[in-house]
Amino acid sequence: MSTSVIILAAGKGTRMRSSLPKVLQPLAGRPLLGHVIETAKKLKADHIITIYGHGGDRVQQAFAQDQIEWVEQAEQLGTGHAVQMTLPVLPKAGMSLILSGDVPCVSVDTLERLLSASNETGIGLVTLTLDNAAGYGRIVRKNDQIQAIVEHKDANEEQRQIKEINTGIYCVSNAKLQQWLPQLDNNNAQGEYYLTDIVAMALKDNLSIASVQPNMAFEVEGVNDRIQLAALEREFQNFQAQQLMQQGVHLIDPKRFDLRGQLKVGQDVCIDINVIIEGDCEFGDGVQIGAGCVIKNTRIAAGTQVKPYSIFDHAIVGERAEIGPFSRLRPGAELSDEVHIGNFVEVKNTRIGTGSKANHFTYLGDAEIGIDSNIGAGTITCNYDGAFKHKTVIGNQVFIGSNSSLVAPISIGHGATVGAGSVITQNVEDGSLAFERAKQMSKANYQRPQKVKK
Amino acid sequence: MSTSVIILAAGKGTRMRSSLPKVLQPLAGRPLLGHVIETAKKLKADHIITIYGHGGDRVQQAFAQDQIEWVEQAEQLGTGHAVQMTLPVLPKAGMSLILSGDVPCVSVDTLERLLSASNETGIGLVTLTLDNAAGYGRIVRKNDQIQAIVEHKDANEEQRQIKEINTGIYCVSNAKLQQWLPQLDNNNAQGEYYLTDIVAMALKDNLSIASVQPNMAFEVEGVNDRIQLAALEREFQNFQAQQLMQQGVHLIDPKRFDLRGQLKVGQDVCIDINVIIEGDCEFGDGVQIGAGCVIKNTRIAAGTQVKPYSIFDHAIVGERAEIGPFSRLRPGAELSDEVHIGNFVEVKNTRIGTGSKANHFTYLGDAEIGIDSNIGAGTITCNYDGAFKHKTVIGNQVFIGSNSSLVAPISIGHGATVGAGSVITQNVEDGSLAFERAKQMSKANYQRPQKVKK
Amino acid sequence: MSTSVIILAAGKGTRMRSSLPKVLQPLAGRPLLGHVIETAKKLKADHIITIYGHGGDRVQQAFAQDQIEWVEQAEQLGTGHAVQMTLPVLPKAGMSLILSGDVPCVSVDTLERLLSASNETGIGLVTLTLDNAAGYGRIVRKNDQIQAIVEHKDANEEQRQIKEINTGIYCVSNAKLQQWLPQLDNNNAQGEYYLTDIVAMALKDNLSIASVQPNMAFEVEGVNDRIQLAALEREFQNFQAQQLMQQGVHLIDPKRFDLRGQLKVGQDVCIDINVIIEGDCEFGDGVQIGAGCVIKNTRIAAGTQVKPYSIFDHAIVGERAEIGPFSRLRPGAELSDEVHIGNFVEVKNTRIGTGSKANHFTYLGDAEIGIDSNIGAGTITCNYDGAFKHKTVIGNQVFIGSNSSLVAPISIGHGATVGAGSVITQNVEDGSLAFERAKQMSKANYQRPQKVKK
Repeated sequence: MSTSVIILAAGKGTRMRSSLPKVLQPLAGRPLLGHVIETAKKLKADHIITIYGHGGDRVQQAFAQDQIEWVEQAEQLGTGHAVQMTLPVLPKAGMSLILSGDVPCVSVDTLERLLSASNETGIGLVTLTLDNAAGYGRIVRKNDQIQAIVEHKDANEEQRQIKEINTGIYCVSNAKLQQWLPQLDNNNAQGEYYLTDIVAMALKDNLSIASVQPNMAFEVEGVNDRIQLAALEREFQNFQAQQLMQQGVHLIDPKRFDLRGQLKVGQDVCIDINVIIEGDCEFGDGVQIGAGCVIKNTRIAAGTQVKPYSIFDHAIVGERAEIGPFSRLRPGAELSDEVHIGNFVEVKNTRIGTGSKANHFTYLGDAEIGIDSNIGAGTITCNYDGAFKHKTVIGNQVFIGSNSSLVAPISIGHGATVGAGSVITQNVEDGSLAFERAKQMSKANYQRPQKVKK
Repeated sequence: MSTSVIILAAGKGTRMRSSLPKVLQPLAGRPLLGHVIETAKKLKADHIITIYGHGGDRVQQAFAQDQIEWVEQAEQLGTGHAVQMTLPVLPKAGMSLILSGDVPCVSVDTLERLLSASNETGIGLVTLTLDNAAGYGRIVRKNDQIQAIVEHKDANEEQRQIKEINTGIYCVSNAKLQQWLPQLDNNNAQGEYYLTDIVAMALKDNLSIASVQPNMAFEVEGVNDRIQLAALEREFQNFQAQQLMQQGVHLIDPKRFDLRGQLKVGQDVCIDINVIIEGDCEFGDGVQIGAGCVIKNTRIAAGTQVKPYSIFDHAIVGERAEIGPFSRLRPGAELSDEVHIGNFVEVKNTRIGTGSKANHFTYLGDAEIGIDSNIGAGTITCNYDGAFKHKTVIGNQVFIGSNSSLVAPISIGHGATVGAGSVITQNVEDGSLAFERAKQMSKANYQRPQKVKK
Repeated sequence: MSTSVIILAAGKGTRMRSSLPKVLQPLAGRPLLGHVIETAKKLKADHIITIYGHGGDRVQQAFAQDQIEWVEQAEQLGTGHAVQMTLPVLPKAGMSLILSGDVPCVSVDTLERLLSASNETGIGLVTLTLDNAAGYGRIVRKNDQIQAIVEHKDANEEQRQIKEINTGIYCVSNAKLQQWLPQLDNNNAQGEYYLTDIVAMALKDNLSIASVQPNMAFEVEGVNDRIQLAALEREFQNFQAQQLMQQGVHLIDPKRFDLRGQLKVGQDVCIDINVIIEGDCEFGDGVQIGAGCVIKNTRIAAGTQVKPYSIFDHAIVGERAEIGPFSRLRPGAELSDEVHIGNFVEVKNTRIGTGSKANHFTYLGDAEIGIDSNIGAGTITCNYDGAFKHKTVIGNQVFIGSNSSLVAPISIGHGATVGAGSVITQNVEDGSLAFERAKQMSKANYQRPQKVKK
């Protein structure tokens, strides 16, 4: 059976007070709509039909890589009107899930259960039981069967006691959508076409209405303003943290952990407070991430320790390495096993061989470093001549003295030594010592400038 | 009508276990009393009369810039005694708000409502309805009219069920204060003069007692120990975070955000976790502040991105700049549009022109840098000779090679180039190359010191 | 009377999903079992008998320094079986506290009250009153006397209403343990020997069962998975934060504070958000610790200010010093009074005299620095020759120019000056100027490499 996912994404989101269309606001680093599209993909939906309106260009551009059928809703005349727009492209057969681009956290499992339940009846919806249901549309049941959905303002006293509410997430057979959507009217105070009215039509057709509840309440929470966005961010982060802890990750404080992407972990990974993980990351067994690290699109192999306040982006780190604190690995940093990178060290587009060390104040850019070499404090690869980037090649067992400048393109041979404070502009042969230095001079009884005592 | 604000600020605050008088303890970076004085100013009070006692010198010194009438309460004989001290300076006419220096969060709106309500009756107070009112003085009402305030210990069972309490915030006509205060007595177990007794006097005079409730409960919370101080800090921070979110700021985690001062924002400002804002700051449209930044008294223009762990103090940053991570802008840093400041870079008392870059390990102090210049990694302006600071002037389109030392006073002309690792002590002319370097030497087959294998 | 502490520490902790035995999982930086052993020591227990099983080698190794009598439980046949294992080493007389290695937070005070109460009866236990007791063994009382402990599954409806539960913490006279433990049987569904059965034996012997409640509920919480571990970590951290605030510490956010060890404080210590304290630390009066600092095994004297993101390990800091931001003090850093250490500065195994300063980008390793000296930006002590570490000695009132390299072993005399950018390889005499520098050269009209305009 063919499954379509219809996503309502036309709203402006005035209450966000943003120039960005609401469905592009990020949750955990990904646009709200991106979460819903991701869910649709995981469901292996045959069609993802997205209804755009406000900021449609930006919305479509943000998902240019995805297989989306875009449908415009030029005027915002209600949810029913929005779904009407999909009729020209909607497959004749199959089922459609109708989701909202600003309800980002609905789970694949909940939707699969909804699909399965609705498949039998032709229509189903996600309902939620709330302690305080005030303001929501109530689910009126008789003998467990859904009899009606009554909006809060239309509900009588008895109905207002009902705690089960409509979440606005539907699953309907495409045949029924073709039948019902054209019949919607806007004879109501707001003059809008309401999708909810299809429930009454289904009941009139003597269909029973399937329903499922989400696994967790936050799955059906929508986002209308910054306060709701921040609240949902925390619920989603908390959920992700619980999942990682169940996998065995030692999170020192789940409330101070942010995952904005995917994290694959081995056993006994420990993550200290205030770490941010972005993009796709992978940590091997026993990896320790110190407080305040920001790790993006990075793979770290087993046994490596990352000390506090290290920032990685598109890096690869081998086993049993020691990195940080205050280190920065930029794109293209590839560190082999047992590499040591110390404080205030920046590595960019550079491969470092097993056991090599750069422990203090070093910039390694566009370099290739062999094994067991030692890069002294303050060493800088001068990789940029103002127009082009050049490469520095350092061999095995090299010792670069402190405060050296290696003017690229340059090559330092295996076992070579560079004297402290040298500017190296010519290649250094294997096993040789290179240095650039004037004679040390001295003036006795030198009088420095003095502050005038007041 | 003349409005006076009387602030009780004489208490020692023994439970704070501090050498600092309680009203000087900071909340959100400002002394408790400072919050109350700020509120008085916003109310445009004609007189701010503050009663000091413990640590009076330090208290008065802390607000030496403010227009305060200071009144001493030499002995702490109760709240009524404290307000009695103001009689010699209190205007004959007008109304007085009576506030506590350790209840810092009462809002201007609540006080304006109190003033307006009390203006009709001659006396009013702020009351609060609590779920658990145990310990507090209860507001006894009959036909909605306040009949009495009964202290918890004096309350009967029925009165103890009352959930409306006295917050100790009053508004009284000065004429009535002149009349009532001298009548207070200390015939009670503690031997203190209680301000609350004026309510009974007002009732005896057949006045009705006006009352208002605060907009939020934390407005009337007092601070007596460090635990209460920390709790109120969080409530106040949460309130500020909500306000910013309502203005459209994207706070990734409102519980990990600290504003210790004022923040003006444009549209679509995004602030990541654990950012601290101090003093007066202003962020233009689309400014992004990375995790863990500490920004003080700084103006950042539209479109600028500040990466994690950057610390700014009294800086100005232009549009579309990229700063950090691990950067530090100290007082007098003025960055034009599109400036790039990278990791481990410190800028002090320095102006940097449009499009110029200092991307790694650089100290720029007391400098002026033109447009489109590139300051290489490890460059240091040697601005200090041990006694005086000197200036470095760098022109447009300059390229400073890595690890250079620019010994100020020094001037590097437009379009000039400085070779890597140079110590520059003489001015460099426009368009020229300057370098300071010895010849690179080499010794073949050099044997470095070796560790004795054990 | 002799007191033994028996600790059950044989469990594997499968749900932790870890290669580490459960009792070695850290809470606040110390293994769960370590907390219990520490408590036993504070109780001045005469014997600490620990029952190991899974991962016994690692467990014993972790506490090799402690006076522990280790007893193996080769098969995990229940809590009663575990305690049976101790019989061969248990003293004939005295009392035993029976604790769990995965219930780390039980307080000395609670256990002293339990000991005292049990001393009279021969047996006692810690019970807890819970709002929701579902799942726990209930304490059945009659006339206040404990009549039975009924497991949840065996409890009738009335018993299930009981809110007082068994925590599994016992105190029993050794004589009774000798008598009762051999009588335990495993005639139950799980085929295990339950320690709880001794309560029935005691009642059969007409003993009354003493009981005490813990001061705080988290004292009796056990750890079975990462989620429980994280939750208990927060409760324990919150408890420690409350204690420090009661001592007068100004914690800006108690929920963002981590103490993993001991902290001794003077008056008016202020600790900003996200600070981590590890090991044994001591802060004098008025010490201020900025946001995000990580301070381990460090002593900081009165009036010193540590700015954000500073990382100290085994350091000593004098009075009125100013350190950071982004500073790192590594083991052996000893700073006298009024020392200034600025941003991006690393100090290791180095003593710095009163009033000396190193304000930017400096590595001081294996050095000794006198008083009132100024170490310029970018200075590096070249302490390592690839095999050995050497010492740098800098006198009083020395001025080291920026970007200097001091090649150790080296000595810079009192009052000496080193010119900027020098590599100093020979000792510098008192009062003299030393510099190493080539002549500055210049080429007019120099054409840098240019990007080809596309």
